[in-house]
Amino acid sequence: MSQPEFKTINTSDLRHFTESVFKSIGCSEVDAKLAADVLIKADLRGIDSHGVARLSGYIRLFEAGRINPKPNIQVVREKHSVFTMDGDAGLGLVVAPRTMEMVIEKTGQYGSSNAAIGNSNHFGIAAYHAMMALEYGYIGMAMTNASPLVAPTYSKERMLGTNPICYAIPAGEEPAFVVDMASSAAANGKLEIAERKNKPVPFGWLENKEGAPTDNPADLKAGGHLLPLGSDFDHGSHKGYGLGALVDILSGVLSGANYGPWVPPFVAFLPVMPDLPGKGLGHFLGAMDTDGFMDKETFGKRMDHWIRRFKNAQAVDSDKKVIVHGEPEFELYNHRIQSGIPIIDKVCTDLRLLAEKHQLEHPF
Amino acid sequence: MSQPEFKTINTSDLRHFTESVFKSIGCSEVDAKLAADVLIKADLRGIDSHGVARLSGYIRLFEAGRINPKPNIQVVREKHSVFTMDGDAGLGLVVAPRTMEMVIEKTGQYGSSNAAIGNSNHFGIAAYHAMMALEYGYIGMAMTNASPLVAPTYSKERMLGTNPICYAIPAGEEPAFVVDMASSAAANGKLEIAERKNKPVPFGWLENKEGAPTDNPADLKAGGHLLPLGSDFDHGSHKGYGLGALVDILSGVLSGANYGPWVPPFVAFLPVMPDLPGKGLGHFLGAMDTDGFMDKETFGKRMDHWIRRFKNAQAVDSDKKVIVHGEPEFELYNHRIQSGIPIIDKVCTDLRLLAEKHQLEHPF
Repeated sequence: MSQPEFKTINTSDLRHFTESVFKSIGCSEVDAKLAADVLIKADLRGIDSHGVARLSGYIRLFEAGRINPKPNIQVVREKHSVFTMDGDAGLGLVVAPRTMEMVIEKTGQYGSSNAAIGNSNHFGIAAYHAMMALEYGYIGMAMTNASPLVAPTYSKERMLGTNPICYAIPAGEEPAFVVDMASSAAANGKLEIAERKNKPVPFGWLENKEGAPTDNPADLKAGGHLLPLGSDFDHGSHKGYGLGALVDILSGVLSGANYGPWVPPFVAFLPVMPDLPGKGLGHFLGAMDTDGFMDKETFGKRMDHWIRRFKNAQAVDSDKKVIVHGEPEFELYNHRIQSGIPIIDKVCTDLRLLAEKHQLEHPF
Repeated sequence: MSQPEFKTINTSDLRHFTESVFKSIGCSEVDAKLAADVLIKADLRGIDSHGVARLSGYIRLFEAGRINPKPNIQVVREKHSVFTMDGDAGLGLVVAPRTMEMVIEKTGQYGSSNAAIGNSNHFGIAAYHAMMALEYGYIGMAMTNASPLVAPTYSKERMLGTNPICYAIPAGEEPAFVVDMASSAAANGKLEIAERKNKPVPFGWLENKEGAPTDNPADLKAGGHLLPLGSDFDHGSHKGYGLGALVDILSGVLSGANYGPWVPPFVAFLPVMPDLPGKGLGHFLGAMDTDGFMDKETFGKRMDHWIRRFKNAQAVDSDKKVIVHGEPEFELYNHRIQSGIPIIDKVCTDLRLLAEKHQLEHPF
């Protein structure tokens, strides 16, 4: 398989450029740094689809009047450890980590905390927000709803986003356990890659607009839909649908955001639906202090024991080791922080155009 | 397809019998009532595999010395809203709801609460415990680890149970949203039914002991393993594996219970592994006060709106309506509470033998 051409960019250059873009749309210095950090960490962890490749998408949302670069993020309701935030149409990249800071503070006070966030926008990788809890020895959790692409079991209508769930759990000497997963069978990004290459995808990833199985990735844009994790009823798609629904309810219904088919699209060229039941899209964040359950040292040792046992589970093929969630991303992070971040040519071109439009220096 | 023969038993007769069985092994009146309620509610909701069909299994565990009928259930660590319980080898059917009562009390105090429970046993349906939160207007959550049957992605070793996750979320006029799902592609019970009928199952449910795909349900008992939700890597089995791992860590590692391949088997004839890292098996429970996020009336209306919209999502086939999680069980509950609970002959025979052994009156 031919690899796309790419250019490797030094992390601090990429970070500096990304910050300058966010500042150019009116974000404060502090917010621009934070938003850039969320994208750069996605690239460092190898989640390239959610890193700077999305930068121009956020800017187009701003240009469409759907992002407020100077949001007044506010607690709108609160009861001890739980609260709801209004993101004031800010970047999810800013609204979510700001809220997570409060979740962490309240976890220190109460042992656990949860926040529903409404009136927000796309928040990047869920893992960024959940992992903020790790340095306090807390378990972090993050989920978000997203533009509808997934049809429930038995339906052919796009009702849910790929609605990810992330949990980050600290270990002792081992890297933290970090599971960050969409509730759909496949991520949209994988379909887009296959479509560009004109290649079929596995059956079970999507259906066409009539609700029939297909392996043609182009059927998605032609009115089809993604399938929930499990793919079909026989293989448990009602479970994937249930997870996606759970994320939608906690992120959207509970927060005052939009939900289901009303979640505003990430791409600025698609219109927002009429008669919206809420504002923007929603996230749901949480943390728990492990020390409230077990002393930290014992817990760290038990986590290390768990992780080592799973890594050494009997493999089917000796060349495919069993993976513990979070470890591949941890290793890639350590590699890329040294060697730089490979940015594919298509994204370089896109970012160069963005730089020229905003008259910014750039490393592409 | 031929239906198995069954006898319909009046709910209060079945409840009375089940209580008498638990009393006969030394449970207190109150604990026997509680344990029976968990099993009867499973049958009422149509989760027949987790109802009285399991009763003799619990008794065999008691006879094997693995269940303490008079447990001293104790908080062993606590920090405001979060705590760890030691179930003292009691019935999970008692330990879990007792702990959930405390979770609910703490939710009233702190807005949310979470409990890890170690040294417990099989707790029945997760939905029972999560749904206890509903009458307070709280969101309830329950998960548990279980005897290893599922191999991680790329592995052929049984490392995880079918580790279920349940969330129960109150609505307004509509029945509550209740998702209660195993993190495996298929439940073990479905394989057992297919095996008894000598019928193949879909590929993607299990692999044989070499880690090769199979549609023969008998391959499970011959050393094979169940597959995580997603079935294979291409269809996201690493996500199902991630969910199962998450449940195992929160329920087992964090609570002081056993985890992974060390979780003690439910069936009494299988030995417990040596060098256990903890005690019994573990659960993880939680609750959140919806009123801390949004006023109850508004939340109820938004939930009803969500539920009605999803029930009316465009169906692929007009004879298969889109289902909202919890509604089929709610309807079956209302039906069976009136008409009685159908118990298949095989289970009737099993319970009759149990009754005779313990010299108890029975309705079978």
